[in-house]
Amino acid sequence: MNSCKIAVVGATGAVGQVFLDIADQRHFPIDEIRLCASERSVGKKIEFRSQEIEVELCTPAVLDEVDFAFISASGDVSREVAPLAANRGTVAIDDSSAFRMDADVPLVVPEVNAKDLNDHKGIVSIPNCSTTPLVMVLNPLMKKSSVNRVVVDTFQSVTGTGAAALAEMEHQSEAILNTRPVTSNEYPHQIAFNVMPHIEPFQKNGYTREEMKMLYETQKILHNSNILVSATCVRVPVAVSHSEAIHIEFEDMISPNEVREILENEPGIKIVDDPFSDVYPMPIDAAGMDDVLVGRIRKDISHPNGIAMWVVCDNLRKGAALNAIQIAEEMMKRDIVAEKNWRK
Amino acid sequence: MNSCKIAVVGATGAVGQVFLDIADQRHFPIDEIRLCASERSVGKKIEFRSQEIEVELCTPAVLDEVDFAFISASGDVSREVAPLAANRGTVAIDDSSAFRMDADVPLVVPEVNAKDLNDHKGIVSIPNCSTTPLVMVLNPLMKKSSVNRVVVDTFQSVTGTGAAALAEMEHQSEAILNTRPVTSNEYPHQIAFNVMPHIEPFQKNGYTREEMKMLYETQKILHNSNILVSATCVRVPVAVSHSEAIHIEFEDMISPNEVREILENEPGIKIVDDPFSDVYPMPIDAAGMDDVLVGRIRKDISHPNGIAMWVVCDNLRKGAALNAIQIAEEMMKRDIVAEKNWRK
Repeated sequence: MNSCKIAVVGATGAVGQVFLDIADQRHFPIDEIRLCASERSVGKKIEFRSQEIEVELCTPAVLDEVDFAFISASGDVSREVAPLAANRGTVAIDDSSAFRMDADVPLVVPEVNAKDLNDHKGIVSIPNCSTTPLVMVLNPLMKKSSVNRVVVDTFQSVTGTGAAALAEMEHQSEAILNTRPVTSNEYPHQIAFNVMPHIEPFQKNGYTREEMKMLYETQKILHNSNILVSATCVRVPVAVSHSEAIHIEFEDMISPNEVREILENEPGIKIVDDPFSDVYPMPIDAAGMDDVLVGRIRKDISHPNGIAMWVVCDNLRKGAALNAIQIAEEMMKRDIVAEKNWRK
Repeated sequence: MNSCKIAVVGATGAVGQVFLDIADQRHFPIDEIRLCASERSVGKKIEFRSQEIEVELCTPAVLDEVDFAFISASGDVSREVAPLAANRGTVAIDDSSAFRMDADVPLVVPEVNAKDLNDHKGIVSIPNCSTTPLVMVLNPLMKKSSVNRVVVDTFQSVTGTGAAALAEMEHQSEAILNTRPVTSNEYPHQIAFNVMPHIEPFQKNGYTREEMKMLYETQKILHNSNILVSATCVRVPVAVSHSEAIHIEFEDMISPNEVREILENEPGIKIVDDPFSDVYPMPIDAAGMDDVLVGRIRKDISHPNGIAMWVVCDNLRKGAALNAIQIAEEMMKRDIVAEKNWRK
């Protein structure tokens, strides 16, 4: 399969916009593209490869006519659209958490577990944007030594919530700088000039759903239920890119130099680690980049086999849209997309 | 000793201003106050308890005439002024890192190790503003079980750097909101809408000096060299208050409820922990408060004897000025301040 027809569901959202940019930049081979969104956006025109494309509703007829449906809207939209697509032989590549832990749904970061795509049944899930950079770092290192435990604290940007949250952060910032009162709709509290240890609903065990995802998704992607992950996920007033302070406990001793050597040969990872020259990953530098940036690699002084590092990744690109496109590319390469009647 | 004469060295800085507010709020018994700063600020007038006080240089003559010199300026100022004060029988209460690890200098958080004040030789150091909340939480819990290891990642506000850094964050934010270019003087990179894993210079082991302080100062204050601490200290675009994601590994099992019970009876600590009602500590709520706010207390799912929590503290108050005043109050109560000739 050398080219495909696609539908982008959630085309007017933060991830949808980035999806179109990346598809163009990577010369993703699209024969036909359908842009779908909610009623409110129908009729709106979006430019893609110098063409004006009209936004439409995602109907069964649209899904019939495409090979892939990229879904990045709400969980509710995913729960409706993804099975509808799969039943029509259309691969749903889904950015929501709706199907991630479903045993029949591969949860894939192509650099890590592309082979899981072979078992797809029409729906493929993209991991949460804070899980993806973590597994990209862990996977190659686990070939050197198994990992027993990870403590990770995140610094997540507002576009992880969506375009409206970005606008809210900007409005609030402006209000505060001009000593005007602040209103919050997207978050329970002010996010401008503040940090909030609350992403997704709280669970009975005191962790948030976002924090539990980092455990469950990591174990599923790495096919390893022995890795324990404890996370504190924090929203910070940053537009794009999630940062993570990661503390890894290996079974065997592994040196910072070995870690650096292993990671710098990994596709999708870029080492940014020259602290004495003030060089380390930062959200403003990662935004718009495809690579996961890794720096501050050091021996953890509190654990005999510990390594600490600092990882930053564009949550809209590798954390979402880029990973989705890479999954489609990989499925086309493996020729595991259903043959459609209209293609014959 | 029921009242005292004091000099505030660095009176025009971020901590100096807060010091005067707190001294007033607490009715700290001051007979006479001298406000000192650098040449640049001499002659400036600052109001304290409805009096206009003129800023002057910190000369030996000034130090001769006071019981306490509160120093919050640069490390260089501390290195010059603190010994000068001590030699004159004046207690230097120093907010810099210059003397903290000196064996002859008590490093004190009054709620934790007030008794160390008895051994003072004229200089008392205040811990780094990220260490203070950590030891306040660890100390009471260690009466229940010893602590083997702490992983802590910090979210530190710009006033930890000073008033100029706060102004820089505000200017940068305004520039970005109006799509104007940004300049950075206080930090090596833009801090507005960004996070920076770099506080204080980098050491050979890959940690920053700030991160190593969290190990060394914790061990000194708790008189326990077995506690290992691994920190990643990160600057975030917040005006006031440092936040910390803390993961503690105890020797014995201790439940979240036990932790909550122990901490809620501790002076200087306030439990803010009702996540299902969106209640947890945040910098905007901690700013201006004396208490260390503790929330998100939960069993660490990745360690049999682990506890995770989220702690926020006003870096200018308990992290600096308040702790300084509490030290002076405690020394007066213990009557361990030198008797001055002019007092007799």
